[in-house]
Amino acid sequence: MKTRRSDRLVDMARYMLERPRQLVSLSFFAKRYESAKSSISEDLSILKRTFQERGTGLLETIPGAAGGARFVPYMLQDEAETFIEDIRQLVDDETRVLPGGYVYLSDLLGRPDILRQAGRLIATQYLKDNIDAVMTAATKGIPLAQSVAEQLNVPFVIVRDDAKVTEGPTVSVNYLTGSSKRVEKMELSRRSLKTGSRVLIVDDFMKAGGTIQGMQTLVGEFDGTVVGTAVFAEGRSMNRLLERFTSLLHVDTNLSANTPISVTAGNFLKEIYKQEA
Amino acid sequence: MKTRRSDRLVDMARYMLERPRQLVSLSFFAKRYESAKSSISEDLSILKRTFQERGTGLLETIPGAAGGARFVPYMLQDEAETFIEDIRQLVDDETRVLPGGYVYLSDLLGRPDILRQAGRLIATQYLKDNIDAVMTAATKGIPLAQSVAEQLNVPFVIVRDDAKVTEGPTVSVNYLTGSSKRVEKMELSRRSLKTGSRVLIVDDFMKAGGTIQGMQTLVGEFDGTVVGTAVFAEGRSMNRLLERFTSLLHVDTNLSANTPISVTAGNFLKEIYKQEA
Repeated sequence: MKTRRSDRLVDMARYMLERPRQLVSLSFFAKRYESAKSSISEDLSILKRTFQERGTGLLETIPGAAGGARFVPYMLQDEAETFIEDIRQLVDDETRVLPGGYVYLSDLLGRPDILRQAGRLIATQYLKDNIDAVMTAATKGIPLAQSVAEQLNVPFVIVRDDAKVTEGPTVSVNYLTGSSKRVEKMELSRRSLKTGSRVLIVDDFMKAGGTIQGMQTLVGEFDGTVVGTAVFAEGRSMNRLLERFTSLLHVDTNLSANTPISVTAGNFLKEIYKQEA
Repeated sequence: MKTRRSDRLVDMARYMLERPRQLVSLSFFAKRYESAKSSISEDLSILKRTFQERGTGLLETIPGAAGGARFVPYMLQDEAETFIEDIRQLVDDETRVLPGGYVYLSDLLGRPDILRQAGRLIATQYLKDNIDAVMTAATKGIPLAQSVAEQLNVPFVIVRDDAKVTEGPTVSVNYLTGSSKRVEKMELSRRSLKTGSRVLIVDDFMKAGGTIQGMQTLVGEFDGTVVGTAVFAEGRSMNRLLERFTSLLHVDTNLSANTPISVTAGNFLKEIYKQEA
């Protein structure tokens, strides 16, 4: 049956929002709603305008009868600043400091509302990049990596430090932990990443960056390219192993539990929105 | 500025879709769009009708000036059957069979499109239940648990078999693995789950069910209630430890790699949609 414009708009919004970065053709929508392509084109202009006015993302429209639309989510600077300040306040809590200076973040990285926003924010940095996969290290990097992968609409792969019988053949690399200077091993299922992939590395927390350096080496073993590295929080580090990364938060602690914590915005805002400033 | 209906519909659809099960007040929308509550009410009727016609979910509207709306995602039987048949075909591939009869699923559980649908499907079973948290076991259960938690809009918590220094104080339980009859230990950060929570247990794969039984015990240690148990796939088991669970797929394999695999629909469709049949 032919659909009313109001109904089309609601359903098209849902359809596009659920499929970031995927090109959807005019013909598909015309058939789905039994409507003329010219009507669908007008609908897409409304979506585009609203998504832009509300800071939801970019609706790229490809004109012509063979055209379509592609939705690319992003977050504008104002919303990003508010979000980072919100999570900064949540982390800035000395009861989060654990022995050794570690910071408890698992509750925040288990909240869908925070993960959704963090994923959309990190995806904003790669608005114009082609990314084939998101890579993270088990266990605590997974939720954020999944959220970023949802916004980019690409698969995510999980690197592990323990071989499991359910992963099949793996590729492994050794890496040096930055903090304790031990040599560790990490591995990734051979089947989970295509050779030559363009990979975004995502993790929850970075100290010296040894784990991330290990993942970079692993990407190389798959003849892939590291497009970027993003972490939820970076800690204080005297001997950082890598330079190029973005962090949402910067966390400074002492080595004893329940001692003062100092949380500031990471380098993300400065790196990403600098051109607009 | 006052907003046009078409723009309101697009933005309201996005706003509600991003916040499953959360009550959003008429006043909030009236202010956001500088529009009369009566107009917002009409908008909500359009959303409700479209979400229902397209099988997206239920938009519960609470009438009156103090009212609002709550969006509860679900999946109808037709779409559920198509989705389960799609993933059944993807898993039904003998190159997935690993030594020991394990099945490689990590690629599928790393695909946002599959996870989104699986999450929405599993959430359908708990349409009328109050759930406070989703629980899973590291590592491979995490992606599905996160997807279900997104659809329910509640936090998810991760049970681990190895204490990490970043989890803080934990509660641990011992459990018997069903297949190898060994006693193992699993633990959950004390801080990650509120006492008395109503918990949905989600995992990627169940054989005898020992891990899930362990998680049930753990929920008890937090004085919580297990609302249900859902797994992506169940394997063949001679000595199943628990009875009440739902599975999207049932997978039968031999113990040698690359031998035939037999994949059928799990008990989910039968359990959930039986009343409509």
